Amino acid sequence: MSNLLIRNARVLSITADARASILYNHDIIINGSRIEAVQPTGMADASHFQQVIEADGLLAMPGLINNHAHVPMVIFRGLAEDVSIEKWFNDYMWPLESNLQADDVYWGMQLGLAEMIRAGVTSVADHYFFMDEAAKAVEKAGTRALLGWAIFSSSGMPMVERTGEFVRQWHGAANGRIRGIMAPHAPYTCDDDYLRANVKMAKKLGVGIHTHVSEEMGQTRASLEKRGLTPVQVLEKTGVFDVPTILAHVCGALPEDMPILARAGAGIAHAPKTYLKMAMGTAPIVEFRRHGIPVGLATDGAVSNNTMDIFESLRLMAMTQKQETHSPEVMTIPEALFVATRESARVFGQPNDLGTLEAGALADVILLDLNGLHHQPLHSVTASLVYNTLSSDVQTVIVDGQVIMYNRQLLTLDEGEIVAQVSASMSRLAQRVPNKRIQVYNP
Amino acid sequence: MSNLLIRNARVLSITADARASILYNHDIIINGSRIEAVQPTGMADASHFQQVIEADGLLAMPGLINNHAHVPMVIFRGLAEDVSIEKWFNDYMWPLESNLQADDVYWGMQLGLAEMIRAGVTSVADHYFFMDEAAKAVEKAGTRALLGWAIFSSSGMPMVERTGEFVRQWHGAANGRIRGIMAPHAPYTCDDDYLRANVKMAKKLGVGIHTHVSEEMGQTRASLEKRGLTPVQVLEKTGVFDVPTILAHVCGALPEDMPILARAGAGIAHAPKTYLKMAMGTAPIVEFRRHGIPVGLATDGAVSNNTMDIFESLRLMAMTQKQETHSPEVMTIPEALFVATRESARVFGQPNDLGTLEAGALADVILLDLNGLHHQPLHSVTASLVYNTLSSDVQTVIVDGQVIMYNRQLLTLDEGEIVAQVSASMSRLAQRVPNKRIQVYNP
Repeated sequence: MSNLLIRNARVLSITADARASILYNHDIIINGSRIEAVQPTGMADASHFQQVIEADGLLAMPGLINNHAHVPMVIFRGLAEDVSIEKWFNDYMWPLESNLQADDVYWGMQLGLAEMIRAGVTSVADHYFFMDEAAKAVEKAGTRALLGWAIFSSSGMPMVERTGEFVRQWHGAANGRIRGIMAPHAPYTCDDDYLRANVKMAKKLGVGIHTHVSEEMGQTRASLEKRGLTPVQVLEKTGVFDVPTILAHVCGALPEDMPILARAGAGIAHAPKTYLKMAMGTAPIVEFRRHGIPVGLATDGAVSNNTMDIFESLRLMAMTQKQETHSPEVMTIPEALFVATRESARVFGQPNDLGTLEAGALADVILLDLNGLHHQPLHSVTASLVYNTLSSDVQTVIVDGQVIMYNRQLLTLDEGEIVAQVSASMSRLAQRVPNKRIQVYNP
Repeated sequence: MSNLLIRNARVLSITADARASILYNHDIIINGSRIEAVQPTGMADASHFQQVIEADGLLAMPGLINNHAHVPMVIFRGLAEDVSIEKWFNDYMWPLESNLQADDVYWGMQLGLAEMIRAGVTSVADHYFFMDEAAKAVEKAGTRALLGWAIFSSSGMPMVERTGEFVRQWHGAANGRIRGIMAPHAPYTCDDDYLRANVKMAKKLGVGIHTHVSEEMGQTRASLEKRGLTPVQVLEKTGVFDVPTILAHVCGALPEDMPILARAGAGIAHAPKTYLKMAMGTAPIVEFRRHGIPVGLATDGAVSNNTMDIFESLRLMAMTQKQETHSPEVMTIPEALFVATRESARVFGQPNDLGTLEAGALADVILLDLNGLHHQPLHSVTASLVYNTLSSDVQTVIVDGQVIMYNRQLLTLDEGEIVAQVSASMSRLAQRVPNKRIQVYNP
């Protein structure tokens, strides 16, 4: 007897060579945490299942993956708008983060996870502080996460040990839903020795490194002046590419960085809303992909991106790459969906398990209602997925074979309690004390 | 006795000098089609009203204005993706439009209006064909529209008379909710004599002109080669600026066009999603505004823009202007909201009646639910309006003092019937017959 039958859905199929199609009238059979079969409706007997979800008229697709976020930052949402990147860090974000307490991360993580579940995001590579609190929230939410505890040189060498200890404790927890990763903040806040110490720890633990690099061209120029190397070259020199990596942003990539990234098999996390809002230029995604460099979608934190909405990232990636290359014919709908699914799974480090609905994959499935008027008439399901879908179209969410949202009702998290807890801290969190900040931005 | 009391809302206030604030615990009193007062809750006695809407925890703002659309094109949604602008017109849009029948416009207009009501869009400047059918749909929907029947030189001079007759028949209809405008398609499809004939008719009728101009830089270059003038200069020469104008797009504006547009008081309709998707560059909105040229938001048609979502246009305008000018400090949240409200009303030709919630204005009000997790915690209502709001957050819509959507239920249009009617025509509408098209794109 299998656990769960999703009956009579339209199933989004994305092949390994980036072709997209819709399988109409198909069932998805889930056994334990994995998909057992995707097959035409009528073959399976519903009475053989513990649970049946009737999906007539719904679209099933892989749960979305957010490859770079600072989820608990949702607690500061809306507090740093219309400012330069220097002010954003030095006058807002890093002063605000000096208010952080462990409990803020626990509730903020739950809030951000709840927002993401409602938006069909089932996996997140998160990069923040007090990460054992974040891990507890993920355990409770039932989602999947790759968690890294962010550290700077100024955090001191003992924090490499401490954050390694966090990874050791949580890697593989919650039936494998939680994985750990080392998270030195960026080459401009971590010196070479600190990066090397992170690499050493990552190798010892058998995990990767998640960091920010060349966020915008100014950082690349500053690195060339100060170190004579691009930030990507700094990562290469310090051995970061000896382990699997997730590199956030890379809008300041230079042509000489391309072969390094390609050799490294580095995964790029792409958060285009942040880049537009902060006027950072954008990452050369078409060029990265031409070099075979994997690219996955991301939201970044809510203080720059405002929402944790991967459908918005998907749409903005496709549109900004067209604009950037002056060609409406690049980053086609199938390619954009390929990035959002299979490639995002590759960057996340689970290329065979996630990003596809097929037998053997992990059962992370979302069901979308495309009957809203903004999709009608539905001449093209795939066009609607990229250009019309709102996060509010997500109806039901399954992770690791467990239903965690059904018909827009969250089943693992308590929205009312989360909002009450976070709201109670708003005035404390919004304070900015002159000259009190966790770090200084001076790339 | 007044008609309608909206009780205990948060009211968005945008001043004439673009300052934004929130009036907490305020009532909106509506009498007939106009707002009688906006005042602190507690002063009005609910028993004196025919209808009371309890708006605790909801945000009230002016109904959104869509300054350039081809609403009935929703029937072709998703049929022309990932193609160049030439292919978009010649291989897709203009062949598809040769399938159009009057009934398609009637049902397509209803579908697009229903989508817009659900997204808080209460007014639209529409530019399409068979516009008496569109007018009937607006009359039924209860929204506001400025309707122009699109014509080309190739339509022939009698169509100037025919479309003038349409304006004469409908201008001021439906308690003034419907206004008419002349709608020559563009300088590249209308020769000088045709533009002059439209101006003559507009003057005779006492209305304006709504047209496309300098949609992208290639059109500007082509016009300079063929006519020795920019498209904006062509409009000036042919007298188009002697009447009020709505100019769609103008991404190909040159510095010499700025003083012409400023003198003309021409209104720019800005549809940034289309520009990104079609890689058209973008319009210099910051520069237009520096010259005092009014700018309003728009969606364009659904075949390029995919949705009729003005909240998305608002967000993309703010973000793309920051990116384009390399400054995150331009197009601030208050300025973006000013463009979305008062400036959009000015472009629409009703600057005193629309775009603001104050005594004397027309009662076009939308109520938003900002309690969704993607807004939480709500440190900044105005930031959330620009960067977080989804069209699905719109809860209740009032136009001309009438409630046309309540708690997400449409009260004037029948969604089921509309979708059934449009869906029944899908295969006929999607046909493309070789060499059959309504017009050729060759700017």
